[in-house]
Amino acid sequence: MRATDIIGKKRDGGELAAEEIRWFVNGYTNQEIPDYQMAAWLMAVYLRGMSHRETVDLTLSMAESGDQLDLSPVIDFAVDKHSTGGVGDKVTLVVLPLVAAAGVPVAKMSGRGLGFSGGTLDKMESIAGFRVDLNDDEFLQQVRDHGIVLSGQTKSLAPADGLIYALRDVTATVSSLPLIASSIMSKKLASGADAIVLDVKVGMGAFMKRRDDAAELAQIMVDIGTSAGRQMVAVLSDMNQPLGSAVGNALEVREAIETLRGGGPEDLRQHCVAIGGHMLRLGRQDTSTYAMAQSMTEITALMDNGAGLAKFRELVEAQGGDASMVDDPDRLPQARLRDTIHAPMSGYITQVNALLVAQASLELGAGRARKTDPIDPAVGVMVHCKVGDRVEKGDLLFTIHANDDARLARAQDYLLRAPVFRSREEQPLPMFYDTIYGNK
Amino acid sequence: MRATDIIGKKRDGGELAAEEIRWFVNGYTNQEIPDYQMAAWLMAVYLRGMSHRETVDLTLSMAESGDQLDLSPVIDFAVDKHSTGGVGDKVTLVVLPLVAAAGVPVAKMSGRGLGFSGGTLDKMESIAGFRVDLNDDEFLQQVRDHGIVLSGQTKSLAPADGLIYALRDVTATVSSLPLIASSIMSKKLASGADAIVLDVKVGMGAFMKRRDDAAELAQIMVDIGTSAGRQMVAVLSDMNQPLGSAVGNALEVREAIETLRGGGPEDLRQHCVAIGGHMLRLGRQDTSTYAMAQSMTEITALMDNGAGLAKFRELVEAQGGDASMVDDPDRLPQARLRDTIHAPMSGYITQVNALLVAQASLELGAGRARKTDPIDPAVGVMVHCKVGDRVEKGDLLFTIHANDDARLARAQDYLLRAPVFRSREEQPLPMFYDTIYGNK
Repeated sequence: MRATDIIGKKRDGGELAAEEIRWFVNGYTNQEIPDYQMAAWLMAVYLRGMSHRETVDLTLSMAESGDQLDLSPVIDFAVDKHSTGGVGDKVTLVVLPLVAAAGVPVAKMSGRGLGFSGGTLDKMESIAGFRVDLNDDEFLQQVRDHGIVLSGQTKSLAPADGLIYALRDVTATVSSLPLIASSIMSKKLASGADAIVLDVKVGMGAFMKRRDDAAELAQIMVDIGTSAGRQMVAVLSDMNQPLGSAVGNALEVREAIETLRGGGPEDLRQHCVAIGGHMLRLGRQDTSTYAMAQSMTEITALMDNGAGLAKFRELVEAQGGDASMVDDPDRLPQARLRDTIHAPMSGYITQVNALLVAQASLELGAGRARKTDPIDPAVGVMVHCKVGDRVEKGDLLFTIHANDDARLARAQDYLLRAPVFRSREEQPLPMFYDTIYGNK
Repeated sequence: MRATDIIGKKRDGGELAAEEIRWFVNGYTNQEIPDYQMAAWLMAVYLRGMSHRETVDLTLSMAESGDQLDLSPVIDFAVDKHSTGGVGDKVTLVVLPLVAAAGVPVAKMSGRGLGFSGGTLDKMESIAGFRVDLNDDEFLQQVRDHGIVLSGQTKSLAPADGLIYALRDVTATVSSLPLIASSIMSKKLASGADAIVLDVKVGMGAFMKRRDDAAELAQIMVDIGTSAGRQMVAVLSDMNQPLGSAVGNALEVREAIETLRGGGPEDLRQHCVAIGGHMLRLGRQDTSTYAMAQSMTEITALMDNGAGLAKFRELVEAQGGDASMVDDPDRLPQARLRDTIHAPMSGYITQVNALLVAQASLELGAGRARKTDPIDPAVGVMVHCKVGDRVEKGDLLFTIHANDDARLARAQDYLLRAPVFRSREEQPLPMFYDTIYGNK
């Protein structure tokens, strides 16, 4: 095979054979195919697209490009979740302990965030001492001992994805559905999940702005997982406004703890019940008609009876974290400055622009613009309004947690533009738009 | 400016500003922009195209990326020619001395061939001792002394083109009209021509297989030259069958000499009169109605009275070549083996596939598959038939000149498939399809 032939075939809109894709991805991973040939190919893929079959083959080639985690010695049937990323999305922190508390072990590898707020690992690192760099043996041993583990991805897992992602970032080939889908799913497949719940976000604060793009991405990922013999569910969920109230690392941990205490914002609570319900149902391989309703009821009970919180505390302690921060969230990192933004008029909220809240949070230092940027765990924004709310002039809309006056001022600029009011009544936003099931 | 923004703009089908193109080309030439970003951009250009305005700006950026030859100290108004490449195209060898003999000085930089037969430099190197590596001083001095020079392109001329061409070759982005046009024209502009005659080939043996592609390429190049203040003419000429009879380096030199003696194949002779006529007319800046007819008459006379041949001999001698080879072409390199192919049936020739003749010639060793391949000057094919000819079974169609039995056998395989016969009368192929003039 010749690299130029494979590039040329995709350039002309042809469908690549599984063997061609595998040869190209392996050649790139082994540094036999140079960056410039992969770059030309990625642009051809971006502009010509890929069939579902090609996307499946690309994903499998990437998943098989390095080590693959075998969870079978410790979990009979492993269930995992993945969110495509949203503002205030701390769902993993809540549902992982709930599912584990229900007796279904969870072994999750997570990434760091690039963008408006930290990733799951960054959030957990708000808790002093919490380790996210477990090696494979520690990772497996912890699942065996505690039924729950949450650690960083090892570099030997789907290395082709890491290499290709870095190249996409500098060649304007990021926002391509087959490339996004294969990047996400290659890591999930390599990390040993038997069932995967995908939370595909759509809206102003999500990567996918349009419903049909998000639905297509969800469908491709479900197809990939199904083709690879995995049980799959994808939910399309709203990301026009932030999820819950907290946006920022320690603030989100605190909100997750509140939710595990049976409190927390109603939308976050419902979101966790839905995602947790799917995970529980899949983890128990229960295909009965009532499985989903039963699972949701059980997740709700574990939220209200403190069993989920206990499992969260066990997770924190097992990975060296300071469990007293779980018991007393006031001990989590706190920002030096607080400021508030109030409603400039009375009316109904018709928009709380998640992207602007995210940009405010990024300005404060809660996220990274570049991979190497440090994160400030304490800073962020508390959002006190939701679309559909009736507010009176002077009502509290946002609380800003900052460590720097200039940054605080820049965050205010964004937040002042985030809410939109109108005089007529406004419906709340739906939480979910659709659910897509794998058909195998 | 950021490279990813420029790549993204072209990826989305946007039109790049002159400054963006210049910044990107300069950054690449200076090695500030890496290969992988140029590769992604080239694929985006390939698939999204470029406006004429963008193509002009790309060409100018490439032309200005290195040294630019200033011919004005030695030639008031310099005229150049360029062929997009065809099988048996030895027109430069014939028209350069004819135009110089008419008193219009010619200073041509040529390239080496990549593909079925050698380039002009390779052909001239069939003549023992002929130097093609003149430095700028030698180049200019020779025009001053002899009114004619033919040498290799210096590396400092349009270096961006050399870099981009090498990258296109390995990223499946060669066959893009704006990239082809800018590559050709950047070198022509940098080498100081005031007027340029383009010979754009179309047909089975040409890069452009279709008339409308060739016409578009010709129009883009004429537009580029005109925008850069050059006098431009492009002729669209047939390349379905080989031009003249000889295909192969020394064989073509011999045929060029025969043509400069007033002999040679009729199609080659007519082709040289047309190209030479345009060059003479432009070189004299004569815009009168009769200029073309007068120029063609003059070129024909210089072919028949030996003045062109004398100028060719002067060129060879000035650049260190063995002029006795011009006087006695039997002294040119000759192949060890000869074989002939005869008509297997009687009928009218309806096709002499130039591509198959070219592949036969390449098999014999007359061309290069890779840049570093050596060329055998002696080998090649003499084509004794033209479309429209009536032949009888057993008539001579091809003579093969080879230095290796296995290669000879492979060449035969190609040549046996090259001619197509039919029983009804067939029209000869036209030599030219169209002429495009610059309108400035």
